[in-house]
Amino acid sequence: ILPEFSKRILSEFGIGYSTYSLSNKEIMDIPIVKEFIEEDLPEFIDADFVRITCGARDGIFRVLSSIIKKGDTIIMDGNRHYSTAMVAERIGAKVLEAKNSDKPKYTIDVEDYKKIIDENDPKLVILTYPDGNYGNLPNTQKLGKIARKNGIPYLIDAAYSIGRMPFSMKKFRADFVVGSGHKSMASIGPIGILGFSKEWEDELLRKSKYYNSEINFSGSEIRNLPFVVLMASFPSVVKRVKKWKNEVIKARWFSNEMENIGIIQLGEKPHNHDLLHFEAPLLYEISKKNPKRGYFLYYELKKRNISGIKAGMTKHFKLSTYGIEKEKLEYVVESFKQIQLKRN
Amino acid sequence: ILPEFSKRILSEFGIGYSTYSLSNKEIMDIPIVKEFIEEDLPEFIDADFVRITCGARDGIFRVLSSIIKKGDTIIMDGNRHYSTAMVAERIGAKVLEAKNSDKPKYTIDVEDYKKIIDENDPKLVILTYPDGNYGNLPNTQKLGKIARKNGIPYLIDAAYSIGRMPFSMKKFRADFVVGSGHKSMASIGPIGILGFSKEWEDELLRKSKYYNSEINFSGSEIRNLPFVVLMASFPSVVKRVKKWKNEVIKARWFSNEMENIGIIQLGEKPHNHDLLHFEAPLLYEISKKNPKRGYFLYYELKKRNISGIKAGMTKHFKLSTYGIEKEKLEYVVESFKQIQLKRN
Repeated sequence: ILPEFSKRILSEFGIGYSTYSLSNKEIMDIPIVKEFIEEDLPEFIDADFVRITCGARDGIFRVLSSIIKKGDTIIMDGNRHYSTAMVAERIGAKVLEAKNSDKPKYTIDVEDYKKIIDENDPKLVILTYPDGNYGNLPNTQKLGKIARKNGIPYLIDAAYSIGRMPFSMKKFRADFVVGSGHKSMASIGPIGILGFSKEWEDELLRKSKYYNSEINFSGSEIRNLPFVVLMASFPSVVKRVKKWKNEVIKARWFSNEMENIGIIQLGEKPHNHDLLHFEAPLLYEISKKNPKRGYFLYYELKKRNISGIKAGMTKHFKLSTYGIEKEKLEYVVESFKQIQLKRN
Repeated sequence: ILPEFSKRILSEFGIGYSTYSLSNKEIMDIPIVKEFIEEDLPEFIDADFVRITCGARDGIFRVLSSIIKKGDTIIMDGNRHYSTAMVAERIGAKVLEAKNSDKPKYTIDVEDYKKIIDENDPKLVILTYPDGNYGNLPNTQKLGKIARKNGIPYLIDAAYSIGRMPFSMKKFRADFVVGSGHKSMASIGPIGILGFSKEWEDELLRKSKYYNSEINFSGSEIRNLPFVVLMASFPSVVKRVKKWKNEVIKARWFSNEMENIGIIQLGEKPHNHDLLHFEAPLLYEISKKNPKRGYFLYYELKKRNISGIKAGMTKHFKLSTYGIEKEKLEYVVESFKQIQLKRN
């Protein structure tokens, strides 16, 4: 959800060419932009360098297309976004998986990476922190140690953490990290950030031989409305990240309330993130008899002015409690309760 | 400039997640989206297939990363956007250039490609139609014949034509064409389109082995605000393209008026496009003595509510007359006249 200031920016800068009367280089030289990219963002995620991308997936692609060759092996977690494997497939890399545990927790044990590393020759390890399905937060720091010890570059997909919770690349000993503007940084999309450590400066920031331009980051990423909105939202994002502990407390409380009415939370418990995955056997039973089938829940919630759950889902659905007042969440729980009672 | 309807769309859909309660596949299945991508856009540019990209440059990158290998040779025109060569450099391809003619016309003679083709083994030819510097429209159709005859794939960079003027891939015998949403299709960016012929269906639309998704086009291109705005603006874009002849007449008239006050139009003359490049020796003389130096023109125009010329330019500058009423253009000419008179 955009802060009010960013909504104003949207309407005032809402023409394709708003930032186009300057060249890329000139935009980078605007003090507020330079500071944002070279100081604010690196400080925010504790990275040596940050560059703007067209989203988290695009960030992963830029890393892979720079350092991975066809036939190389990459290890990634079983909870990853499907697109992480697709980017590898696009490059022609082989994917090995550190599987998640069984239902109901679906956790990632980063020790599993060690075994796969020993038996193979991976050129990169990728970990999703947290995944978008269960909101599980694996031991990022431990995998950093394992990767460092084995001399393997380490990328964290932080599309659901950067902008929501405190994040430190250095603490996690990561080489690369991607974040998403439209998923977790209160921006419109498509936009994302790519952080990396100074070891990769030469490779990722290499300049064209013919133009005064970084070959991997010279597109229109910083010349369009999503970038303007990302910048406009940043101060409020910095502020909200500081309240992360309260968000976790609230998510745990909400999970507990839902379980009290028979809706079971999957993933880590007690939960450490605002992304929650629920299993609702009662709602599923209702859907089987309802003429709208799986879509009935979407419409029942819509009637009550509640949005955010994918249309068609009843047996399993995901939601986020981020930034929502407790009173509103109480109303959500009460609504689920009423919808379940309707079955009688 | 966005149509009013698109401005409304901006504020109503202006949240990152607006189109995210559906999967990519589900969005593609929405009848209006399906029709837009599979029927409206292909018909609009006379292509077999169209897909959405993050801009013209990104479209070129997607083609090159699919069909060009490191060390391959590509021929491109001397008027190309600098980024076209940078994309080739990013892939590791060798670039040969069909040079432009000398001042003042800077035209591209596509016959020059023939000679380069004969002496080399290019894997792709690229032509910019028109270039963004002079607004020159080279003989796209003739190069299509040359490329076809020699069995070489042919890509047209139409960032400044698609959305402004009628365009037919088939007439030009192109294999690929890229267009820009934020440059010429009345959208916010970053967004673009990539059209291609059915010969390339297998290569460009290949599906993941593991996911029901096109490997080259599965990002958030169609899941964000720029796409919504592109669709919202499309009907007005279709309408304005039909008035192209008037736009050319108006651009020629404007060029003539400017020349009457000593500001010389470079590029093709009579001109065939709304992008105009001017050389202004009188303004340059003034800038040398003005405390604001080259920026004085920008501020003089700003005072008169005229925008669109890059800050800092005086000796040479570019502007577009597209979609601007003749009375307003008369005011622009009159303003230049007054600014030049100030030198005394």
